[in-house]
Amino acid sequence: MTMKQYNVAIVGATGAVGEQIMNTLIKRKFPIATLKLLSSARSAGKIIYFQGQPIKVEEARPESFEGIEVAFFSAGGSVSKQLAEAAVNRGAIVIDNTSAFRMDHHVPLVVPEVNKEDLKNHNGIIANPNCSTIQMVVALKPLDQAFGLRKVIVSTYQAVSGAGHEAIEELQEQASRMLSNRPYEASVLPVKGEKKHFPIAFNAIPQIDVFQDNGFTFEEIKMINETKKIMHRTDLQVAATCVRLPIITGHSESVYIELDRNDLSVEEIKSQLLVASGVELKDDPSNQVYPTPLDAEGKDATFVGRIRKDLDQPNGFHLWIVSDNLLKGAALNSVQIAESMIELELI
Amino acid sequence: MTMKQYNVAIVGATGAVGEQIMNTLIKRKFPIATLKLLSSARSAGKIIYFQGQPIKVEEARPESFEGIEVAFFSAGGSVSKQLAEAAVNRGAIVIDNTSAFRMDHHVPLVVPEVNKEDLKNHNGIIANPNCSTIQMVVALKPLDQAFGLRKVIVSTYQAVSGAGHEAIEELQEQASRMLSNRPYEASVLPVKGEKKHFPIAFNAIPQIDVFQDNGFTFEEIKMINETKKIMHRTDLQVAATCVRLPIITGHSESVYIELDRNDLSVEEIKSQLLVASGVELKDDPSNQVYPTPLDAEGKDATFVGRIRKDLDQPNGFHLWIVSDNLLKGAALNSVQIAESMIELELI
Repeated sequence: MTMKQYNVAIVGATGAVGEQIMNTLIKRKFPIATLKLLSSARSAGKIIYFQGQPIKVEEARPESFEGIEVAFFSAGGSVSKQLAEAAVNRGAIVIDNTSAFRMDHHVPLVVPEVNKEDLKNHNGIIANPNCSTIQMVVALKPLDQAFGLRKVIVSTYQAVSGAGHEAIEELQEQASRMLSNRPYEASVLPVKGEKKHFPIAFNAIPQIDVFQDNGFTFEEIKMINETKKIMHRTDLQVAATCVRLPIITGHSESVYIELDRNDLSVEEIKSQLLVASGVELKDDPSNQVYPTPLDAEGKDATFVGRIRKDLDQPNGFHLWIVSDNLLKGAALNSVQIAESMIELELI
Repeated sequence: MTMKQYNVAIVGATGAVGEQIMNTLIKRKFPIATLKLLSSARSAGKIIYFQGQPIKVEEARPESFEGIEVAFFSAGGSVSKQLAEAAVNRGAIVIDNTSAFRMDHHVPLVVPEVNKEDLKNHNGIIANPNCSTIQMVVALKPLDQAFGLRKVIVSTYQAVSGAGHEAIEELQEQASRMLSNRPYEASVLPVKGEKKHFPIAFNAIPQIDVFQDNGFTFEEIKMINETKKIMHRTDLQVAATCVRLPIITGHSESVYIELDRNDLSVEEIKSQLLVASGVELKDDPSNQVYPTPLDAEGKDATFVGRIRKDLDQPNGFHLWIVSDNLLKGAALNSVQIAESMIELELI
């Protein structure tokens, strides 16, 4: 039996996430018949090597999707809004890494370890959740299933690579200049198009994405709404504070949860996470074992550590959740969605 | 009328906090008759200039405190345990910046904006709280007073200068090496004497101070216990997760609180903080106004921003609290304690 192979396109192929999607497809031996690399007009013409063969990056246009069966979109929400329909109309399954369709009721928002079955309701587009949401639900789903989750309060420690290559370069340039007492500028973070920019090197910026009228940032609202949708828990209480930090890759999260049960021990929490798909427990305080973003870089797992029972609230626990934001937070999850589509015989 | 002047000693004068204590005494024109700079044997002999005059740093011994009226201790808990009593026995008031006596029932633990009156119960030693505790209680006390505080859940974003000069140098050296792809080492953080060390540059370390049996670090336990003691609220629910980050100076805190009242608006919270002593409100999301540690460096205030009402919990609010950990978090608060002692005619 020969396995079916697919004509694949990556939109945003020259971006930080697009690069990782190609690497992940190779690493996981995704059954590729042909690979098309697409980008904005600005990056078109660039040569990228795929398994030793040069591929010229082409400008993404509606016609680009002729014959494409799986299209990964990671070039910003406006590109997805502009071209996803054109791709679907030409028969492609779109796996979209932007926020364009995530809260659309007709679009499944999927983390395969959590809600793979939702893929069955797709209408051509499947949304890949926000990076900080993915790693959190991977760790919280098994606890919800076993003990019932009531409340989540998360504070994030997010890496700059979530904002792309420009943000990485800005951090490195600023850090280098500050270390040698040279003047530095800020023009990318917190948000490319915003009025004000702040230095990120040796700093913390409590703004990711733009502010909403209620004082929360859109990143925080994404974490709140996406968590409820993915976990099928509209009643879940979720609050988030999202902070950008001088870290290249690897998002960390300080997460407080309340469960339905009052009688649980740290060991019972650990025993669920030990067998949870996609989770790697890294929790042994007496030997200083806990996850850090530098350790998580380049790894597929969502790492959980620092699990402890709240000292006042009998159903309260604290966790420290870390994952590579470009991999499980983006590229890996997108490729896993495609793999799950094949497994469920949806493509 | 001539103002009384005092014979002052600084123990740990060559450390990151000791240096800031001297700077703060000068800046605030503390009435100094004589100044003695003390340190470990290792740093003794160093020359430090005080108002243009060279002072030779001497090794701290019991006899060093002969004639001293105010002694600032900032040389680690073991030095305080060893020498504070000797200083008190010689008539000095000890203002101790270590954790040695903070939870001692006979020792007031004071943040002047919060519990200045506790100074009246002193027995020679006054404890200066942990840096991350101070800035939090400065911001929370006015809310407790006005609306009744029930619960606090804090995640910290702490700068390396809280761990001293060595930690600052380690961060700078690692960052410089990582930026040029050179090999790097870690030997200071998270805790000097611990078995394992982790790089802090472009990383996040979820350990400050040593682990306790319950899985919390001692830094987290300090925040929990000290907050209750300073605010005279043994019943207050407090939970903390403390994280070290690649920031030179300035601690930030993501703080979730629950109040007694369900009917409060963000504006009512702001109106209390606007007039609160030691607090500077920096909160205008529509103009991207919020505090960052880089902005707070060198400033005396505790900055509060990102105030928003929780979307589920009617008595829940989120705040982002930032302050210079070497100033209000340490040196400034210590000097303010001494000033308050004068004001209350206790010295």
